[in-house]
Amino acid sequence: MLDIIKTRRSIRKFKPEKIEDSTIEKIIEMGTWAPSGLNNQPWRFVIVKGKETKDKLAQQTKYSHIIENAPVCVAVFLDNAASYDRVKDIQAIGACLQNMLLAIHAMGLGGVWLGEILKRRKEVEKLLGVPEPCELMAVIALGKPAEEKGEGRRKPIEQVILSRR
Amino acid sequence: MLDIIKTRRSIRKFKPEKIEDSTIEKIIEMGTWAPSGLNNQPWRFVIVKGKETKDKLAQQTKYSHIIENAPVCVAVFLDNAASYDRVKDIQAIGACLQNMLLAIHAMGLGGVWLGEILKRRKEVEKLLGVPEPCELMAVIALGKPAEEKGEGRRKPIEQVILSRR
Repeated sequence: MLDIIKTRRSIRKFKPEKIEDSTIEKIIEMGTWAPSGLNNQPWRFVIVKGKETKDKLAQQTKYSHIIENAPVCVAVFLDNAASYDRVKDIQAIGACLQNMLLAIHAMGLGGVWLGEILKRRKEVEKLLGVPEPCELMAVIALGKPAEEKGEGRRKPIEQVILSRR
Repeated sequence: MLDIIKTRRSIRKFKPEKIEDSTIEKIIEMGTWAPSGLNNQPWRFVIVKGKETKDKLAQQTKYSHIIENAPVCVAVFLDNAASYDRVKDIQAIGACLQNMLLAIHAMGLGGVWLGEILKRRKEVEKLLGVPEPCELMAVIALGKPAEEKGEGRRKPIEQVILSRR
């Protein structure tokens, strides 16, 4: 498990093979096992597999080649109608996204958390037809990995531990 | 791994046994393996073990009994000096917290993500003497579990999948 956490890397190139619906749903289910404040579960998902919608989604980011190349994308939203505290809800979404990325890696797949697309979040929300209170938080592109993993640089923990008391 | 994600629960009662420093550092290291936008790694940590500071920390929340009872707490901060996008940075902190909670569970320990304490974040920041740009995001209390895990209710995924496209 600790090894899964430590060896997860962003994967941006994918083999063309399709991903089973049951696999995509399992990944989303793992996302929902994240904790949330008051257990409000503010996450919502749109699965994007069809070429037409996927190509339109790709046009909303400078990383369009990643989305075009991925057999499936999952757009993740914060439902502001379910929100109770914006900071804690956004943290919960981060925890949900991390569960999804860990599940993807643990299943032998690869994925990447795309955030730059938030620059055009209104366009994406319209394209995907989500209810008004739903705010785009990220898109995860995933598939069978077709590239080697990067090195993964992190600061030594002594640089991020401020003090011991 | 999927089992670890699915069986993690908040643990709020702990045995009095101490937790090794190397274990605490391993949990923090796992937190740092979360992804962050531009790999900015905006998380910072304060380890609170000493009774005096821990009791003062406990006074900042209505859940004081959890902190008093835990052999160790880790306060997690967003370093706004390292920030590049507030929403994405807060998501990254959520991913970091989730890695820590999963690591705690995988190591046979128990922990809980405390958010209510953010109501007194300024007081906590002063108490723990963090640099000015560091903003309290959460406190994780952890130790050897002394209670059974809760049930863990989640919405069926069909309630959180908005559409398939």
